[in-house]
Amino acid sequence: MKTEKISELTINRLSIYLRCLNELSEAGVQTVSSKLLAEQFNLNSAQIRKDLAYFGEFGVRGVGYVVEDLREQLRGILGLATTHRVAIVGAGNLGLALANYLGFQQDSFQIVALFDVDPARIGLEVRPGLVVRSLDLLPSVIPERQVDMVMLTVPAVAAESVLEMVVQAGVRAVLNFAPIHLSVRPGCKVKTVDLSISLESLSYFLANPTVEPQEE
Amino acid sequence: MKTEKISELTINRLSIYLRCLNELSEAGVQTVSSKLLAEQFNLNSAQIRKDLAYFGEFGVRGVGYVVEDLREQLRGILGLATTHRVAIVGAGNLGLALANYLGFQQDSFQIVALFDVDPARIGLEVRPGLVVRSLDLLPSVIPERQVDMVMLTVPAVAAESVLEMVVQAGVRAVLNFAPIHLSVRPGCKVKTVDLSISLESLSYFLANPTVEPQEE
Repeated sequence: MKTEKISELTINRLSIYLRCLNELSEAGVQTVSSKLLAEQFNLNSAQIRKDLAYFGEFGVRGVGYVVEDLREQLRGILGLATTHRVAIVGAGNLGLALANYLGFQQDSFQIVALFDVDPARIGLEVRPGLVVRSLDLLPSVIPERQVDMVMLTVPAVAAESVLEMVVQAGVRAVLNFAPIHLSVRPGCKVKTVDLSISLESLSYFLANPTVEPQEE
Repeated sequence: MKTEKISELTINRLSIYLRCLNELSEAGVQTVSSKLLAEQFNLNSAQIRKDLAYFGEFGVRGVGYVVEDLREQLRGILGLATTHRVAIVGAGNLGLALANYLGFQQDSFQIVALFDVDPARIGLEVRPGLVVRSLDLLPSVIPERQVDMVMLTVPAVAAESVLEMVVQAGVRAVLNFAPIHLSVRPGCKVKTVDLSISLESLSYFLANPTVEPQEE
């Protein structure tokens, strides 16, 4: 692998390529060229080749990519060959929605713990085996349940202190849904999902209908 | 405005600049250079200048940007000077979470309608003035309530048919949360929020801790 920094956008595109390859695999397709991949899924073939080139030589001259091989390679690069054990902090509507979100590939991401501070929610069985626990138990439950990722769905005012607890418990990857910019912690990657940014890009489209933004 | 295509990433960055300027405005800051803006918010100053240059000349030589002026300009470009009227289809946990999401600036995005097919949910008052209505009423409620954006939080199997109803009702901007790739409809911008892509980029970070992806 090249040592130069690889952008988060490249990583996000690998996720998209993997979804396309999963579809091709289900359809029984065995090989695909970057050109066909781009045409079928509305992608850019030069971008595909450039993104993949960061990680090695995957294509076979005159054949293209072997679908199953490239799937396995991408799963490896994205760290999806092992199951991640995810905890959710905040059992409000958003936390419960995420706990049941079918978009998370069941074999790659497993929701193994759910925390809240509200006594009315603690003890609630969200689904068999997944019970809302008191936030006080987080420092012991995280190592016990071998949690390696946390999703924060707490109110903005609580987000910074909960992040501190989570980092103290040894977690190095956090997906934050609170509408707040959290401070950087060394050794822990915090990614904030800001849903209003998506709405604002739709707003731009409505305000400028003739200049539809290019997908990247 | 230049006629060349402006990427969705540029638009997303404008949203981020606007958030930074909002913070500066609240703090009473009157002018800021691209360099200071970049330093304070961990952005790239050359990128800021390039992104803004698509839309005009906003800086004042030797002064930088006038915070209030640039805020107003960005709000105008992003179509946020007028309030968007948003409907949510799907009153499950995710739909309810979005209906109450504080991250949506109350003056730019107003949730004015909420639909579901489940008789147990129809009639539920989510908050004063916002009642879950039957999906059957969507074709009449959308023009009545002057809805211009829809968020889809329905199961994947229902997403395509609900999208068709929404497009037929005249909506041209849809934010889709169903984990499915929806077909393209001319004249309607559909943006899919795929939450597992964010988890996969965290997974990459855990698998490659020494090569932290660059933010773009």
